[in-house]
Amino acid sequence: MPDIFPTETLEVTTGPLPASRKIHIAGTHHPDIRVAMREIALDPSANEPPLRVYDTSGPYTDTTYQADIRRGLPALRAGWIEARGDVEAYPGRDPKPEDDGLKPGEARRVPVFDRGQRQPLRARAGAAPTQLAYARAGIVTPEMEYVAIRENLGRARLREAAERDGESFGAAIPDYVTAEFVRDEVARGRAIIPANINHPESEPMAIGRNFLVKINANIGNSAVASSVAQEVDKLVWAIRWGGDTVMDLSTGRNIHTTREWIIRNSPVPIGTVPIYQALEKVGGKAEDLTWEIFRDTLIEQAEQGVDYFTIHAGVRLAYIPLTAKRVTGIVSRGGSIMAKWCLAHHQENFLYTHFAEICDIMRAYDVSFSLGDGLRPGSIADANDAAQFAELETLGELTKLAWARDVQVMIEGPGHVPMHKIQVNMTKQLEVCGEAPFYTLGPLTTDIAPGYDHITSGIGAAMIGWFGCAMLCYVTPKEHLGLPDRDDVKTGVITYKIAAHAADLAKGHPAAKLRDDALSRARFEFRWRDQFNLGLDPETAERFHDQTLPAEGAKLAHFCSMCGPKFCSMKISQEVREAAQQGMEEMSERFRGNGGEIYLPPVAR
Amino acid sequence: MPDIFPTETLEVTTGPLPASRKIHIAGTHHPDIRVAMREIALDPSANEPPLRVYDTSGPYTDTTYQADIRRGLPALRAGWIEARGDVEAYPGRDPKPEDDGLKPGEARRVPVFDRGQRQPLRARAGAAPTQLAYARAGIVTPEMEYVAIRENLGRARLREAAERDGESFGAAIPDYVTAEFVRDEVARGRAIIPANINHPESEPMAIGRNFLVKINANIGNSAVASSVAQEVDKLVWAIRWGGDTVMDLSTGRNIHTTREWIIRNSPVPIGTVPIYQALEKVGGKAEDLTWEIFRDTLIEQAEQGVDYFTIHAGVRLAYIPLTAKRVTGIVSRGGSIMAKWCLAHHQENFLYTHFAEICDIMRAYDVSFSLGDGLRPGSIADANDAAQFAELETLGELTKLAWARDVQVMIEGPGHVPMHKIQVNMTKQLEVCGEAPFYTLGPLTTDIAPGYDHITSGIGAAMIGWFGCAMLCYVTPKEHLGLPDRDDVKTGVITYKIAAHAADLAKGHPAAKLRDDALSRARFEFRWRDQFNLGLDPETAERFHDQTLPAEGAKLAHFCSMCGPKFCSMKISQEVREAAQQGMEEMSERFRGNGGEIYLPPVAR
Repeated sequence: MPDIFPTETLEVTTGPLPASRKIHIAGTHHPDIRVAMREIALDPSANEPPLRVYDTSGPYTDTTYQADIRRGLPALRAGWIEARGDVEAYPGRDPKPEDDGLKPGEARRVPVFDRGQRQPLRARAGAAPTQLAYARAGIVTPEMEYVAIRENLGRARLREAAERDGESFGAAIPDYVTAEFVRDEVARGRAIIPANINHPESEPMAIGRNFLVKINANIGNSAVASSVAQEVDKLVWAIRWGGDTVMDLSTGRNIHTTREWIIRNSPVPIGTVPIYQALEKVGGKAEDLTWEIFRDTLIEQAEQGVDYFTIHAGVRLAYIPLTAKRVTGIVSRGGSIMAKWCLAHHQENFLYTHFAEICDIMRAYDVSFSLGDGLRPGSIADANDAAQFAELETLGELTKLAWARDVQVMIEGPGHVPMHKIQVNMTKQLEVCGEAPFYTLGPLTTDIAPGYDHITSGIGAAMIGWFGCAMLCYVTPKEHLGLPDRDDVKTGVITYKIAAHAADLAKGHPAAKLRDDALSRARFEFRWRDQFNLGLDPETAERFHDQTLPAEGAKLAHFCSMCGPKFCSMKISQEVREAAQQGMEEMSERFRGNGGEIYLPPVAR
Repeated sequence: MPDIFPTETLEVTTGPLPASRKIHIAGTHHPDIRVAMREIALDPSANEPPLRVYDTSGPYTDTTYQADIRRGLPALRAGWIEARGDVEAYPGRDPKPEDDGLKPGEARRVPVFDRGQRQPLRARAGAAPTQLAYARAGIVTPEMEYVAIRENLGRARLREAAERDGESFGAAIPDYVTAEFVRDEVARGRAIIPANINHPESEPMAIGRNFLVKINANIGNSAVASSVAQEVDKLVWAIRWGGDTVMDLSTGRNIHTTREWIIRNSPVPIGTVPIYQALEKVGGKAEDLTWEIFRDTLIEQAEQGVDYFTIHAGVRLAYIPLTAKRVTGIVSRGGSIMAKWCLAHHQENFLYTHFAEICDIMRAYDVSFSLGDGLRPGSIADANDAAQFAELETLGELTKLAWARDVQVMIEGPGHVPMHKIQVNMTKQLEVCGEAPFYTLGPLTTDIAPGYDHITSGIGAAMIGWFGCAMLCYVTPKEHLGLPDRDDVKTGVITYKIAAHAADLAKGHPAAKLRDDALSRARFEFRWRDQFNLGLDPETAERFHDQTLPAEGAKLAHFCSMCGPKFCSMKISQEVREAAQQGMEEMSERFRGNGGEIYLPPVAR
């Protein structure tokens, strides 16, 4: 392969997290399914089985798998796709230099993924090879069963009915997820399984209010920063820590080539915003965008295997003046690009006018819509304004058009929203968009903390996840300041796993509390390694502990440096418990010794 | 002074934050009041006055002040205290070696603050020198006026009525805070002004639902970590970033000496948990605690100037068995200590039985109660259980007893609480405790992220602050793992400032949004330095920006490395706005050119 710069090392992080091993659960309807999960082993003194957790990290954390980025991941879904018999291979579109921002004849300066003889697939004439179409036809696909097994986190083995404790605001989370339940949710449009027929490497997952709350991590270069190697590394790093999907938001050079590396090596769905690459193709001049260039870009990306497209079809010409008095105008890249085009041509947004054709393209590959919130608020001052909700109404209208054409849909949401204005976003979206899954960016609950926007938004994300949001798009500490590096990616992912899990707990998801309880038991029993290993980031927890108590023996100690041995409340608490138990036994003995009477005659003084 | 280890450097961080200067606003009722505030200057192109923000950092950030830790801060309140004529100086209690954990004759190995001739003050016979007693008598003290001016953030100069936009769940936040309003809130017990007569260095502040949400930072050594110098440094560091009060939770050696350094140098109220020092005095054996030792410790600490005491008088003997089935037992240090004492003696908690005497001591110095939540839940599993709410009922009972004795009261709260169980904590507390201010630790909304508990708890803190909690006790990344260092202190403070401010915004506090709007305007106009300087942590924001775009010219650029010049939505948004304006002007001209008619006759083809 043409490795012009062989010194650019394409290495990613592999190996399991501490005390963890990859297990696979087989399907029943479809016995060839092997659903990957992670088991965290505990200290024998715990007397507890390993804890199973949902696992997004793909084969990279499987010790039996030898990762080779140049080869890509196994095409785990290829057989299922072929067996459905409704797609055909074809030569695909000719690659063009402008796909990578190159001028004709200009040499590419980054390594290219070798696709070998692989040809893209598309629907046979008249077919609709989407999970939505299958679901409506009553078909339980292997993807649906995979999702069901995954969402159960191995809960089938727990015979006891889960004690439901939560407030889900009318969601319908089942005690146990069946493949049929998944089919029904997809058929209603209340969940999507983003799974392009040209991305057979993906491990199926669902995004929907009645499933575990999911998170997305953004990667991608800009004209100013990052490289192919760094972006592939960020992908594998993001999913290692829990990213359920990843969006490649590249806006610089080598967009096509970078994306190929990412998709071929991604076990999670990949999303993009096609207007970015289209803008690159016209040299960055929004007014030079055309429907034809955009259409061609959609096909280019669908052939590669992008699983969902963000499309800003709701940025209508008439709504743009509604942003005139805003403090931060239009903060969506795609939204601002389309607004500029609309005003330059004084025409309706071509994404809106050509929406039916966009649907037809996406249906042929089972690419899902992420209907973009181009007019989302980028400041507290602009939250819940007329522009934002006008766009939401249009997204509701477009949802129904897409569904009529068998295309899966999720809806993007804000943004910057103070806490008291968050819930109305959820209730409006459910109503206007027919319960299509909601996918928000935060929201940030205040503007005053650049450098900490993973936290300002983590608060809003946890809340809107509780209210029913299906997927939360992460925000890193670099938000508003620069392109995130891999440390930022990790911090963003961990913060959003916290938000998503806090939401699952509050909704009363039957499996959520198992992890909190296991960790708290480990904490109370001073099983330090178990406490670290059960946490979202075992290495950081251990490192923090060891900053003040690094000696190995400290991992057995019944205290840490917060309080020291005399003041550790958990240690004292254990002693209290033993004393209480002993005291109860003594009192019990004395009670019986006194004849077992509740009231004794007064003792003469 | 006896500086045995002169190499132990007692240095603290001084100097203003970027673009900031300290200003002082004079009182009107009491003209000698000078309320410190911070003004952040903006770029001239902003055409905006400097933004005023609440300032907890004390004289350390005042360029006209020469800090000397050995001298302590100016006794700004001394004149007011004396003028009230209801207190008297007295020799005070004799210091004992065990106050610092020393054996008789053992040399002290840390520097001691030189008090010179200073004598402690206490109430004259029959007097009640507390802000609560004054408020009930209809007296507006200088402290109350100071608070009013401080809470207004200079809002008096804004003539326009604040546009109220929030949901405060029945709070009563005024558009403009008068000294009389402060008096009334204190008289009702709905707010406290923690201000021991022996801490004249403190800048008065209020904790109450109808004021800005406050935050507390914890410092203090343990037997395992930290030193006097590090703790004084942490104090000044914590208030630099926004700590409204600081608790010294030391549990190691030199507790008395460390505390003296802290109080003499603290412009914010200092809280303690006296049972810790009492436990040190009995060599760490809880069963050896006695009322007499505790009583002596209260007086010792009140004479030094501690502004509020956490007292676990609600850990009643009968409640202890309610914790037997908990996953994490009793996680409060003080709570576990008292539980152990109760069971060892099989007697009611002496803090409960001697409560009236505790009130009498505290009244003599105007020390406020922070009624401890010794039975708070330390895990999601234990949230809102019988033990927790039984204690809350007792705290409600004790609140009324304290009020009857003119002692100010706030109530501590949880802990670990999943989001759906947070609001009931607030509503119960308001009801049971007569609207006394609530002061929670988080709560943490999930247990699964040791290393990130500032975030798991920041979510719960923002929410409960919104619901009406008056002060939020911070949690650092080291929670559950070890003693926080100064970096952790900063991260905890910034996280909790975010939570408190998000709560103020959501409650519709009239002054809150001014800062968000100013920062967002700066962001939209690419006034990078202003954006950094208006944020909670200007240095980090600038450093993050400069990681990818360090050149000075980049601070004028209309993009950053997130999107680069072609894709910056704010830049494009500006262009859209100009085009829209221009387009409107052109259309307007054409309209007038056509005769100003709305409908034109059809043009013949």
